[in-house]
Amino acid sequence: MLNGQAMRYLKNCWYQAGWSTELRAGTQLVRVIADVPLLLWRERSGRVAALLDRCPHRFAPLSAGVITDNRVTCGYHGLTFDGTGACVHNPHGGLSKALTVTSFPVIERHTALWVWLGTPEQANADLIADLSYIDVAPENARIAGYVPTKANYELLTDNILDLSHADYLHPTSLGGMMTSAKTTVRVEDEQVVVEWDARDCVPPGAFRTLIPPPQRGDIWIQVRWSAPAVMTLATFAAPTGTARTAQGTALTLHNMTPETARSTHYFFCNTRPYLTEDVDFSEQLRRALTHAFAHEDKPMLEKQQERIGDDDFWALGPVLLSVDAAAVRVRRILQHLLEAEVSG
Amino acid sequence: MLNGQAMRYLKNCWYQAGWSTELRAGTQLVRVIADVPLLLWRERSGRVAALLDRCPHRFAPLSAGVITDNRVTCGYHGLTFDGTGACVHNPHGGLSKALTVTSFPVIERHTALWVWLGTPEQANADLIADLSYIDVAPENARIAGYVPTKANYELLTDNILDLSHADYLHPTSLGGMMTSAKTTVRVEDEQVVVEWDARDCVPPGAFRTLIPPPQRGDIWIQVRWSAPAVMTLATFAAPTGTARTAQGTALTLHNMTPETARSTHYFFCNTRPYLTEDVDFSEQLRRALTHAFAHEDKPMLEKQQERIGDDDFWALGPVLLSVDAAAVRVRRILQHLLEAEVSG
Amino acid sequence: MLNGQAMRYLKNCWYQAGWSTELRAGTQLVRVIADVPLLLWRERSGRVAALLDRCPHRFAPLSAGVITDNRVTCGYHGLTFDGTGACVHNPHGGLSKALTVTSFPVIERHTALWVWLGTPEQANADLIADLSYIDVAPENARIAGYVPTKANYELLTDNILDLSHADYLHPTSLGGMMTSAKTTVRVEDEQVVVEWDARDCVPPGAFRTLIPPPQRGDIWIQVRWSAPAVMTLATFAAPTGTARTAQGTALTLHNMTPETARSTHYFFCNTRPYLTEDVDFSEQLRRALTHAFAHEDKPMLEKQQERIGDDDFWALGPVLLSVDAAAVRVRRILQHLLEAEVSG
Repeated sequence: MLNGQAMRYLKNCWYQAGWSTELRAGTQLVRVIADVPLLLWRERSGRVAALLDRCPHRFAPLSAGVITDNRVTCGYHGLTFDGTGACVHNPHGGLSKALTVTSFPVIERHTALWVWLGTPEQANADLIADLSYIDVAPENARIAGYVPTKANYELLTDNILDLSHADYLHPTSLGGMMTSAKTTVRVEDEQVVVEWDARDCVPPGAFRTLIPPPQRGDIWIQVRWSAPAVMTLATFAAPTGTARTAQGTALTLHNMTPETARSTHYFFCNTRPYLTEDVDFSEQLRRALTHAFAHEDKPMLEKQQERIGDDDFWALGPVLLSVDAAAVRVRRILQHLLEAEVSG
Repeated sequence: MLNGQAMRYLKNCWYQAGWSTELRAGTQLVRVIADVPLLLWRERSGRVAALLDRCPHRFAPLSAGVITDNRVTCGYHGLTFDGTGACVHNPHGGLSKALTVTSFPVIERHTALWVWLGTPEQANADLIADLSYIDVAPENARIAGYVPTKANYELLTDNILDLSHADYLHPTSLGGMMTSAKTTVRVEDEQVVVEWDARDCVPPGAFRTLIPPPQRGDIWIQVRWSAPAVMTLATFAAPTGTARTAQGTALTLHNMTPETARSTHYFFCNTRPYLTEDVDFSEQLRRALTHAFAHEDKPMLEKQQERIGDDDFWALGPVLLSVDAAAVRVRRILQHLLEAEVSG
Repeated sequence: MLNGQAMRYLKNCWYQAGWSTELRAGTQLVRVIADVPLLLWRERSGRVAALLDRCPHRFAPLSAGVITDNRVTCGYHGLTFDGTGACVHNPHGGLSKALTVTSFPVIERHTALWVWLGTPEQANADLIADLSYIDVAPENARIAGYVPTKANYELLTDNILDLSHADYLHPTSLGGMMTSAKTTVRVEDEQVVVEWDARDCVPPGAFRTLIPPPQRGDIWIQVRWSAPAVMTLATFAAPTGTARTAQGTALTLHNMTPETARSTHYFFCNTRPYLTEDVDFSEQLRRALTHAFAHEDKPMLEKQQERIGDDDFWALGPVLLSVDAAAVRVRRILQHLLEAEVSG
């Protein structure tokens, strides 16, 4: 197994554990993140608790027990813990610090659930990426999704950082103009920004509402990455010559949360400031995105992972192209962050 | 794989391979015990043979061959062995000692089949635990079962040695009074004895025939463990104040035979000296026990094993409670026995 | 995993990748050989290409892309390679040697596809075993098959080199006279030849057309092995006393191509110079062979592999019989060839 031997994950960062809507009051969510099994549940107050899904006594999963508002009782021997992981009831003796179950800082923001696996004292909410565009988008103009994928999260990150793949993997819906677009990559602090600027091109299917045929158009896409794998994709598409505006720019989150060394929780959320009331456009866009991510990206990523197997990506000697510039920088930054965290 | 690397099993002991009824004349039983694949069959004389299920020639399983009374012929190249493992026919040449297939001492006692995986000379039948209570129980008062479980046998042993779990895992059928019962643990020679004494309690469902509502009752349970994992559970339940008698005490075997590092053959046999002719009570008890063991214990044990994974139980740092006293002593004794066997 | 750690395969040799008929024009075939994933396809010219099924850029399988005549375009980022593995189109920049995908010499001969995994310069077509008997056999007298089997290819080789197994595994169809036949083994250069000469025997089912009951007959079988696992089985069967002729001798290929350490592509092709127009006999023979290989040999080989597990065959200490003489010589020759290849 690669897990534990070779695969290390950044710990001091916020991972998206899910969408807020996945956790209605009184429900629970069990999700493995970076090899750590987590139990999340929503208390009556609305607050979300996140505990290691493993009782400290005999390692039964707490999720096999009973949750009552702000407490979970282990279904095996009845130890009861609150949302901070403190044991609040031990039917077999006294309470002690040792009986604590590991809890994780959890924050609900931008319609998503964020957990921190590292040193709790460093769990600064300001470190959550600013995704306020999700908050301000009207509900009809917000398309969120979840695509569990059997591939390492770095492969999924690479996929977004090199959108030239759209020309080959999504040729009729999203691609066609990416490879020939003017591409630039820059590093801003610890963010990596890559842009594609395609002028006077024939728009692919997903852009035909914005650039109705037979018109040609300008399409500009920017991906902004921050660790561990939060990417915001800004997209502007309009008839050739139109000036680029924020009002014409859609923003889409692509967030890759590692599950194990070979699987990823892929969360996406498309938002737009235009056509916000157009239900048909939303439905059509939802179908196009879901088809592309779940039925084109996901199978290719899983086949890619299968060919890589348990080998190290670099050890296989990938031949790098110009389109890999952003992905390579991101992999290097991640490597530095990991090394700093391990040594630091 | 843990097997072979980390997992060691006691060899010089009797493991229950099955129930006698599983092996009618002319039938065979293939069962892996402590990672060793065994072929058992019953000869016409009634005698049971137990061989390594692997031909010494080219390792085909002998169970894929033909058994005729007291001989098995390999289905691949025709070597024939008797129940002692001696080659009695080699179509391709002479007989030799080298052609022997490993055989294992096997004894049928207490309605069960017992095999000895260790040094044959040490296979003393007196070392089989005394379960004569099974022999004397009338057939209607004897409820035997088999629950294959995907968890290490030590977890299944722990489960019986800490019956406080009944209050949480079997709250309406078997538990409710265990946690508050007076509990004692003692070591007698190499046996571990743990007792629960619950006075004047509300009886759970399985005891309501013995303590009819609205009466309250006294429930006394004793578990006696001997290596490797043979446990006899004595249970006395009667209206409050009734003197405890052998005639009122049910005896139940719980025997955990390791299959692999992560799976166990769980055998149980409940017997009682009372209501021996009551067919309805038997049926009701069979249903209650099967439900508890196969549909409550088994899933919890398997989930517990899943959370432990291939990690060592102690390395995970379990937080011990008073209820673990017996289980910890048993694990220590087992560890000493294993070390003695390896060094000895 | 055994793969990579312990399992080594001969590289400088021709492995059968399939039958020519499996690769019609415009189709592709993905097959793992000796742990190497291969993509084979047939160009419009009829030529067959064989590439590593892994793009050198980001390791997506090329088989998930698009093949157009003599080029394959990766479905992920559009790199296009010709049948020699050279990159002929890079949409993202210039061409370079580094962009080459590993290609493998491939030859179509004797109705089969042969690939060479080792040093390309040494890929001498003369090293393909002479199976011209397949070429000259009329179509009705040629019965080819493919039996994927979950067992190491050396076990499948052993199976053919010791046909005494037919008496036990195929007793009514192919065996009965092998164990008592006069058997000889000799090494000719690096070929191993084993012969069985059975005189005046009762013929098994598959030979009753050639030796009609109640006649008895002479059956002579020769297996000629050459590395890595190409075996030709010559079979002569006729009423007792008939002189052996080439015209009365059937020739059958048994070719074992390793897929992984625990799986094999088993190819067979039976040919005969007699009864070449007899369609009923062909059908009857096809059924008998398919039944024997796919429903008798394959299950036994897979069970044998299961009992061996990931252990080394020799480390388990097999007890050798006279019937193993040819198999042992073959294993030794293979071992020498492997060592020579590794050191050389």
